[in-house]
Amino acid sequence: MTTFPTLASTPTLDPAAPAPAAPTVRLVEVGPRDGLQNERQAIPTATKLALIRRLAAAGLKDIEATAFVSPKWVPQMADHAEVMAGLPSAAEFPGVNYPVLTPNLKGFEAALAAGAREVAVFAAASEAFSQKNINCTVAESIVRFEPILAAAQAAGVRVRGYISCVLGCPYQGEVAPEAVAAIARELLQMGCFEVSLGDTIGIGTPAGVQRLIGTVGEQVQVTRLAGHFHDTWGMGVANVAEAWRQGVRVFDSSVAGLGGCPYAKGATGNVATEDLVWLLHGLGESTGVDLEALAACGEWICAELGRPNGSRAGRALRARCAA
Amino acid sequence: MTTFPTLASTPTLDPAAPAPAAPTVRLVEVGPRDGLQNERQAIPTATKLALIRRLAAAGLKDIEATAFVSPKWVPQMADHAEVMAGLPSAAEFPGVNYPVLTPNLKGFEAALAAGAREVAVFAAASEAFSQKNINCTVAESIVRFEPILAAAQAAGVRVRGYISCVLGCPYQGEVAPEAVAAIARELLQMGCFEVSLGDTIGIGTPAGVQRLIGTVGEQVQVTRLAGHFHDTWGMGVANVAEAWRQGVRVFDSSVAGLGGCPYAKGATGNVATEDLVWLLHGLGESTGVDLEALAACGEWICAELGRPNGSRAGRALRARCAA
Repeated sequence: MTTFPTLASTPTLDPAAPAPAAPTVRLVEVGPRDGLQNERQAIPTATKLALIRRLAAAGLKDIEATAFVSPKWVPQMADHAEVMAGLPSAAEFPGVNYPVLTPNLKGFEAALAAGAREVAVFAAASEAFSQKNINCTVAESIVRFEPILAAAQAAGVRVRGYISCVLGCPYQGEVAPEAVAAIARELLQMGCFEVSLGDTIGIGTPAGVQRLIGTVGEQVQVTRLAGHFHDTWGMGVANVAEAWRQGVRVFDSSVAGLGGCPYAKGATGNVATEDLVWLLHGLGESTGVDLEALAACGEWICAELGRPNGSRAGRALRARCAA
Repeated sequence: MTTFPTLASTPTLDPAAPAPAAPTVRLVEVGPRDGLQNERQAIPTATKLALIRRLAAAGLKDIEATAFVSPKWVPQMADHAEVMAGLPSAAEFPGVNYPVLTPNLKGFEAALAAGAREVAVFAAASEAFSQKNINCTVAESIVRFEPILAAAQAAGVRVRGYISCVLGCPYQGEVAPEAVAAIARELLQMGCFEVSLGDTIGIGTPAGVQRLIGTVGEQVQVTRLAGHFHDTWGMGVANVAEAWRQGVRVFDSSVAGLGGCPYAKGATGNVATEDLVWLLHGLGESTGVDLEALAACGEWICAELGRPNGSRAGRALRARCAA
């Protein structure tokens, strides 16, 4: 019963307007890696590089570029060396980091040879998940990181740690926050500069996030933590907001919500970067990101991939611009 | 690089499992009214009634059924009398309310004649919105409710108040929480049993929700407030979580996120009931809703309407059940 205006008249409330110079929250864009790794279709290296370039142009300073894993495991990341060779220069986008995933020393050495200056290692918080996926205990998987961290330190390369299944595991169900805390402490003691806590199956709610950050925060500084939330059950933005309330100021996300859940066809994946930018600007934080440019990037990559845009802020912005 | 299991193994964390007897949070399902009112296609009355029946069967106790507005304004609600005549009996679904929207006394009288036992009136928190949409001031619009409230009291009919644009207006931009608080107080003083605060354009973030509920809560009891959030910018679930933190225990939502934004094609609309059930169960609340039955209802109505399912929890549940 209400008639609505064209959206040209909306923007006065728009948290998107000024892109502030000094970010108070750091966003780690994982679209080119976590977002694309499970895409079945072949994606040209040039498309990946164009995506990375557009993300950097939108103001993102940490863009996970690829993974140095076996093409047998992740065929989509087989062009990791080509991606690294084609990254924008530091002159073009000063201060942008392009971390890559390295599951083992062989991957690390290849990443180093390709010019990586930041890498990431990953462990599961769930024994069942670790056993099923890499056939070893959580403790054994962490021991395997030692040579990577030693080699990285020698080469002056930063190492980030990921912990998966922090709010639940598809095999064992519940995961104790204390288990996550112990792994986070160990990864930081080994030399990781930061630990990203991943709700891999997107099952958590803010109550779980509060317990998790509370417990982990007793063992490590909250400023060394990042939140990595998937939106599978629609909780992504709410979980980021709760982690933010608990003091977390680094978040992983994926433009246009690229990603999806590898085991649940049609389900949503990583929380969308556009939605987080809208949230965080609304919470009074600076991200350094130009939301309009980011949303345009999201529209572009969805058109390239022929998939729907998973960002609701992105869709709202598009609808408004089209009005 | 991780291979995921089939989802049969997931459910141990599932907040969906037990549907508790005594809800601690009240969900007002607005799908049949707010969700359908802007659908362009003709929807048979029988489909609307089947939707209402499925929602009741899933455990929802407050189902906004239709609107007694002029068919010239909202053609989709022209069959309001037929919908009321076809509602399930109290014997079939005991304790279910079927409120209807009534903008004026004529609508109220028609609703009463059709058997309505609860109605809703609606005002805007924004002067610009009120002027553009109903050509009067906010104060004038509230005065027009007086005869409805008097007639309702005489007939023993409950009246709910809606306030729109509580976190922003498409015409004037910012809306002062103090303005919302004054209207909420007035509606309750006039005899409304509850006031639903609507973020009509889905633009708010938890920071705005906190300010809003804080300010309104100084004027009225928070237990008399409901949160009505749209997901246009992806903030719906996060805003519900924040309102819940502020003590709100009644939320409006729409199965499968039915609704959409009438002025932004492709944008999402009401926050999805399935997502709220997942959230609230995760927060330890009881809703009395059977999430599996609700998600099946959401899948069914989306198939009927030929539209994508706007509930991420609904899609995740479907994917899991299909695995």
